[in-house]
Amino acid sequence: MTVTEQAPTIGSAELYHQVQQFYAQQMQLLDQGRVEEWAATFTEDGVFAANAHPEPTVGRAAIIASAGAATADYAARGIQRRHWLGMVSIETSGPDALTARCYAVVLETPRGGPAGIKASTLCEDRLVRGADGWLVEHRLVTRDDLV
Amino acid sequence: MTVTEQAPTIGSAELYHQVQQFYAQQMQLLDQGRVEEWAATFTEDGVFAANAHPEPTVGRAAIIASAGAATADYAARGIQRRHWLGMVSIETSGPDALTARCYAVVLETPRGGPAGIKASTLCEDRLVRGADGWLVEHRLVTRDDLV
Amino acid sequence: MTVTEQAPTIGSAELYHQVQQFYAQQMQLLDQGRVEEWAATFTEDGVFAANAHPEPTVGRAAIIASAGAATADYAARGIQRRHWLGMVSIETSGPDALTARCYAVVLETPRGGPAGIKASTLCEDRLVRGADGWLVEHRLVTRDDLV
Repeated sequence: MTVTEQAPTIGSAELYHQVQQFYAQQMQLLDQGRVEEWAATFTEDGVFAANAHPEPTVGRAAIIASAGAATADYAARGIQRRHWLGMVSIETSGPDALTARCYAVVLETPRGGPAGIKASTLCEDRLVRGADGWLVEHRLVTRDDLV
Repeated sequence: MTVTEQAPTIGSAELYHQVQQFYAQQMQLLDQGRVEEWAATFTEDGVFAANAHPEPTVGRAAIIASAGAATADYAARGIQRRHWLGMVSIETSGPDALTARCYAVVLETPRGGPAGIKASTLCEDRLVRGADGWLVEHRLVTRDDLV
Repeated sequence: MTVTEQAPTIGSAELYHQVQQFYAQQMQLLDQGRVEEWAATFTEDGVFAANAHPEPTVGRAAIIASAGAATADYAARGIQRRHWLGMVSIETSGPDALTARCYAVVLETPRGGPAGIKASTLCEDRLVRGADGWLVEHRLVTRDDLV
């Protein structure tokens, strides 16, 4: 909560807004299947780790490959995904870095069918400021059903 | 809301806050069945378009009629609706106008029964600044099951 | 809605951010079973009232006892809870007090099982500013299925 103390060049509300908008845009890219733009929201060597995966996905090329495969699979099955991130708590760790701890839910809707919850998760991010905005340096997604 | 302030004096965090609070108040009005106040959150000639409707609903009088019919139907069936908007991404288009792209989910709970997801949607808004706060000039709601 | 007018020492965006981050941290504490820290987010004589409970829970000791029993029960059944608060609308009532009206959903995921919605609710809070941040003085949670 002591965001302003640690990042005096930016108000804490402004920082919180930036993270909320970043998350909105980032997940909308993924849900639209824009996987290269999605990967570009990670640092070049960004890490996507998840308790549902045996190994972390490391680097933009690997993130593109992984997200591209998932996107093609969902498209083939006619399912629209929606990633909701919420309950965001952030802590700065220097002027250009922060950690965020939030909840993420994945909703899925098949064409002509009912919307449902695919997974409820905890999302723990380390974000760094890039030239054009925030980037994910490290993300850990913990699915609630697997813990 | 401090709507009398000019846009140049307003930070992006303030704008984002205003939109979040506007959405909260707007959807709470609808979920309470306060349809005239709900309609007043649109411009006089505001448009509510949806891929679930054959034609857009245009103007406050039509919005009142449409929302009133839905409200009466839900009340008769003993169902409480909750509209959640989230993952809000906004872009300004001048000092007194912005576009917002967000997700919207409708939850329904029948009296004595389980809560469930009625629909997962994409909500695309054009908002303009009125004398007393933001107003929806054009809303397009795209249900995920119908695309 | 006239947040800045009534609380001139703090911008409305800053206030809104504080409440969002407070809610995120508060509910994460509960979902982690950190019941003493959860209780410390209420005032010493804080009230937790709910239409699902015959009597309000009053004071931190009672809140610890109640949350502790629920936490032990969920742990025994292998269920991870996630409390989402959203659609937050706040109104200040002096520089150090505010009311918030928001929606709250409880998601539950059993180990190895599907995530589901446990309850959809309305949450009405009176918050006051303590030495280290906001505290809940009075919370009323209204479950949609019981009204």
